[in-house]
Amino acid sequence: MIDNPAKLGDFLKHFSSIKGKKILVHGGGKEATALSTSMGIQTKMIEGRRVTDEETLKIVTMLYAGLINKRIVSLLQDFNCNAIGLSGADGNSIPASKRPSVPIDYGFVGDIDPAKINFEFINLLLENKYTPVFCAICRDENNGLLNCNADSIASALAEACSKSENTELIYCFEKPGVLSDIENESSVIPQITPHNFKKLKESGKISGGIIPKVTNALKALESGVEIVRICNGKNEGTIIKND
Amino acid sequence: MIDNPAKLGDFLKHFSSIKGKKILVHGGGKEATALSTSMGIQTKMIEGRRVTDEETLKIVTMLYAGLINKRIVSLLQDFNCNAIGLSGADGNSIPASKRPSVPIDYGFVGDIDPAKINFEFINLLLENKYTPVFCAICRDENNGLLNCNADSIASALAEACSKSENTELIYCFEKPGVLSDIENESSVIPQITPHNFKKLKESGKISGGIIPKVTNALKALESGVEIVRICNGKNEGTIIKND
Repeated sequence: MIDNPAKLGDFLKHFSSIKGKKILVHGGGKEATALSTSMGIQTKMIEGRRVTDEETLKIVTMLYAGLINKRIVSLLQDFNCNAIGLSGADGNSIPASKRPSVPIDYGFVGDIDPAKINFEFINLLLENKYTPVFCAICRDENNGLLNCNADSIASALAEACSKSENTELIYCFEKPGVLSDIENESSVIPQITPHNFKKLKESGKISGGIIPKVTNALKALESGVEIVRICNGKNEGTIIKND
Repeated sequence: MIDNPAKLGDFLKHFSSIKGKKILVHGGGKEATALSTSMGIQTKMIEGRRVTDEETLKIVTMLYAGLINKRIVSLLQDFNCNAIGLSGADGNSIPASKRPSVPIDYGFVGDIDPAKINFEFINLLLENKYTPVFCAICRDENNGLLNCNADSIASALAEACSKSENTELIYCFEKPGVLSDIENESSVIPQITPHNFKKLKESGKISGGIIPKVTNALKALESGVEIVRICNGKNEGTIIKND
């Protein structure tokens, strides 16, 4: 959605209409690769995952914390949603730890511990009717800024919120939900529980890249999140909840 | 200072040690031109001032709101200053108006009206011991993100703060203060008042590019700011106050 202004606007309009306290977490789309290329910097991949060297960290910080974050904030303000764009470094809101360089050195990449999230700060904003908009740049007190995973930040924030609030976690992507037939957009599986997930995997109805997303969703449920949805940001999508 | 990591670190260490409520406003240094060049975008100037076309707006948003803002926030966090990096779009904190395109079209450039500053939001952060760090990117509700002048934002914020707080405005730059001899760094004029400013100009002791800075400082005094200083960020510098 991030790469498509019309889809992004449409999504943010819908997001603005959600009542109650809400937080948006965004990734970076495909612009980082395009920007790297235009600056003559090669994207390094190990086992299909991007390596964040010093130059790449600069690019993702500019793009995620700068251009994309402020573009989203400005659009949300257009829809009367009083958004505040943040990185995890701001207000020390989401401390990260640099991923160990063994066995694979992904460079300036960080992981999040939900227990360390500064919920007091985030809640100060929420209680005052502001909507935090987080990019996936965080800070390790010993290593400075780090590139993190937006899905992991979303689930860590949901877990932190669930300690004091009924929390719903919504993963939005380009598909209308978890599909039993990846070629067929009307094959959305309406509900997944820990029990039927096992069956769906065994029968081959869920396979491939969606499995880590559903696994993350089930983990969030275990941590106290009430309900998780995987959808395109506008539809009901697939609801993931406990049996 | 922004372009020099050692000087920036030194300045931010000093800034962190300031007691009481404080706000930092930063510009962009020389990196915008360097980044534009590396991306093959030409910097357009009219009468010595940068024109912000659509591509330049992207670059300054990436650089000022992204890389430089988060680098400053991360360094301040290192010095135990709980910084929050913001643009004027965040929390609709500093609304801007696009500068009219007649007589000169500077493109996506905005001006600030101190009366429109959302001090309630800024004060919520200050009261809770957070330190706002503003870049000079703001938003016009009809025109989206705009490139603004950091000095103007600083004086507008100082004016807004002075309605409820005793406010000191400090302009930091590479010189130790207002110099009576631009070649001699020990020729700092210790004090300027509206009265002696006139004399200093007439005698030629103040001339050139520093005059607009001093004029801005005197305007800030008129608007209720108690004291203004022009310095290198660490020394006493030149104190500008009413007679």
